[in-house]
Amino acid sequence: MREVAVLGIGQTRVDEHWDKSLKELAGDAVLAALQDSGLAGAEALYVGNMMSGPANHQQHLGASIADWVGLRFSSAMHIEAACGSGGAAFRSALIAVASGSVDTAVAVGVEKMTDSPGNEITAQLATAADADWELEQGVSFVALNALIMQRYLHEYGWNKSHFAAFSLNAHANGAHNPYARFQEPISEAIYNRAGMIADPINLMDASPMGDGSAAAVLVPADYLRSRQNQTIIRVVASAAATDTISVQSRRDGLWLKAAESSARQAYAQAGITPAEINIFEAHDAFSIMAALSLEAAGFAERGQGPRLANDGEIRPSGRIPISTRGGLKARGHPVGATGMYQIVEVVQQLRGEATGTQVPDARLGMAQNIGGSGSNIITHILKAG
Amino acid sequence: MREVAVLGIGQTRVDEHWDKSLKELAGDAVLAALQDSGLAGAEALYVGNMMSGPANHQQHLGASIADWVGLRFSSAMHIEAACGSGGAAFRSALIAVASGSVDTAVAVGVEKMTDSPGNEITAQLATAADADWELEQGVSFVALNALIMQRYLHEYGWNKSHFAAFSLNAHANGAHNPYARFQEPISEAIYNRAGMIADPINLMDASPMGDGSAAAVLVPADYLRSRQNQTIIRVVASAAATDTISVQSRRDGLWLKAAESSARQAYAQAGITPAEINIFEAHDAFSIMAALSLEAAGFAERGQGPRLANDGEIRPSGRIPISTRGGLKARGHPVGATGMYQIVEVVQQLRGEATGTQVPDARLGMAQNIGGSGSNIITHILKAG
Repeated sequence: MREVAVLGIGQTRVDEHWDKSLKELAGDAVLAALQDSGLAGAEALYVGNMMSGPANHQQHLGASIADWVGLRFSSAMHIEAACGSGGAAFRSALIAVASGSVDTAVAVGVEKMTDSPGNEITAQLATAADADWELEQGVSFVALNALIMQRYLHEYGWNKSHFAAFSLNAHANGAHNPYARFQEPISEAIYNRAGMIADPINLMDASPMGDGSAAAVLVPADYLRSRQNQTIIRVVASAAATDTISVQSRRDGLWLKAAESSARQAYAQAGITPAEINIFEAHDAFSIMAALSLEAAGFAERGQGPRLANDGEIRPSGRIPISTRGGLKARGHPVGATGMYQIVEVVQQLRGEATGTQVPDARLGMAQNIGGSGSNIITHILKAG
Repeated sequence: MREVAVLGIGQTRVDEHWDKSLKELAGDAVLAALQDSGLAGAEALYVGNMMSGPANHQQHLGASIADWVGLRFSSAMHIEAACGSGGAAFRSALIAVASGSVDTAVAVGVEKMTDSPGNEITAQLATAADADWELEQGVSFVALNALIMQRYLHEYGWNKSHFAAFSLNAHANGAHNPYARFQEPISEAIYNRAGMIADPINLMDASPMGDGSAAAVLVPADYLRSRQNQTIIRVVASAAATDTISVQSRRDGLWLKAAESSARQAYAQAGITPAEINIFEAHDAFSIMAALSLEAAGFAERGQGPRLANDGEIRPSGRIPISTRGGLKARGHPVGATGMYQIVEVVQQLRGEATGTQVPDARLGMAQNIGGSGSNIITHILKAG
């Protein structure tokens, strides 16, 4: 396989984009990424999205978005892996370029959630869980995560307030990101006062939905050798793993086995240890998921994710910065787009363009995108220079 | 890129499978394909499907089906390109194996359409067209194809009855296929008496929906060198192309430009001319699409598709047999699964296992899967030996 590099990135702010249709939103990110890359088009288009059929009455996003941006592609398709759709689209684009089947590919993640009533979106989000064995019980997606968090507090002796540090870090970082849905820091008092959604998950533990789109242009790394003035961002690892879709079927509901497996594969591909990672864009859809991700990826001992957060080690100045542009919590979580926002943000860090939350000397960045309650986890490692 | 071969195939009958959930249906085809291949599992799983979110309350099909069949995959995702989803899933699995990122992959197409009321499915099918510029006008998918067919009759001077030959061939072939939804031949009288859906498309011009699943196991062709007793089925071409999603935006609404482009690329990859193709599994969702596909792929002159059918050249004994196991018309069109049924049927022909409709000495078979009204077209060529 050929080594692949990210040549361009683009994104829209996560917001309520009532004035744009799904394809316009995706088009804005695709065209921004192409402009950033200096290319006029690309051969392949991979679109990450979870729920455009029911939420936007539009499937066939490959053809729809290709047409809207006024380009023809030799291959265009839509990739879905629930909240992991963006990471799956990036992985597909990467493999297409690495294989030699195309020389240029655009991966874009897009989701438009705020045109529909909230209860409809909640029902659609629940289709990431098992229809027959989880949804039939009436459990929503946040309720599933609440059951996991409740058990975590019980097993490891943490209080709910120990999770505030995840939310505070995310919102402090989001305040510097013009593309974030929320751009204000929050206080511990705000966290503690936040309304409960599904005990123990309150509003400040949960990421907000939103409309958004993020994209990247991929080319063979060799093509960039001649560009002297540009930092080359190489993709040095892409790995994925599946686990049972139902949380109840797992031997250990507090361990993200698929995250551990995909992270280990990724470290092996990149030839590094976790200690060498400078930034980690974790999938903090809920604060409990940030903790479990840190543990499964090897940055914290089992049950000790909250300690890392409370010691300040997840901040941009810490040992393993996460949510550096706000994460899912403050940048927002337009589900099918999230994995691509993570990639775009890692590239910003590696280019030194993460104004306000730049991690010093960032050379190796990891993005980990989770589909479902840990059932499909995709890990990428990018390297500058 | 490595050359890739199809090692195993599996399928369920297209039918009303009210006793099976989506994942059970997909699982049946995946396990049948694995058993046929002699492998106990695979590294990657690519699931082609169009509408499981709204129709079956289940997204995240990679994780869902992986879990159901009791296997873990290093990569699992859902691929959507409307009615071209099956072909897109096969192409993704192929590129993954060709790239070297995995050594074994399963591609499965699945759709479960008969659990929902017909009007809901019609609305879902319409999401293959442009939500803003086509659906807003109240046009359904069959209506779009009726407009194309009406114009075709007008331009080229054919009568509607000239299209009967497509339907008669499909049903005659389907009668020999135990997996076909309809297993009875039809007469010209039945065609002429069939109820009108959207003039000039009647019930016998249109493919039926259904529940179904088909799968194939892909491995590097080199791995099979030592197997002396087995015909090796190589994938010698995979090509795709996009066109405008709206039919009205095309300079020529009677020419499948994306079919022409993807077929030409495929012939070039395989190093062959159209004349060398022994069977062509065309996307006969409507009889007009069969005619346009034959023309765009280079088997008939522009406007002369129906002549080929009326001369008997599309039958198993003819110059370019199509719909050899019933096609979309008689085998049935569970939309996201169709592209994989086409692949499975080409493999059956190349193995010499197409009982009742075997094309003599079939060595080169082509499958062409269409997403939308010709907006995303995926062509594969397979070769025996």
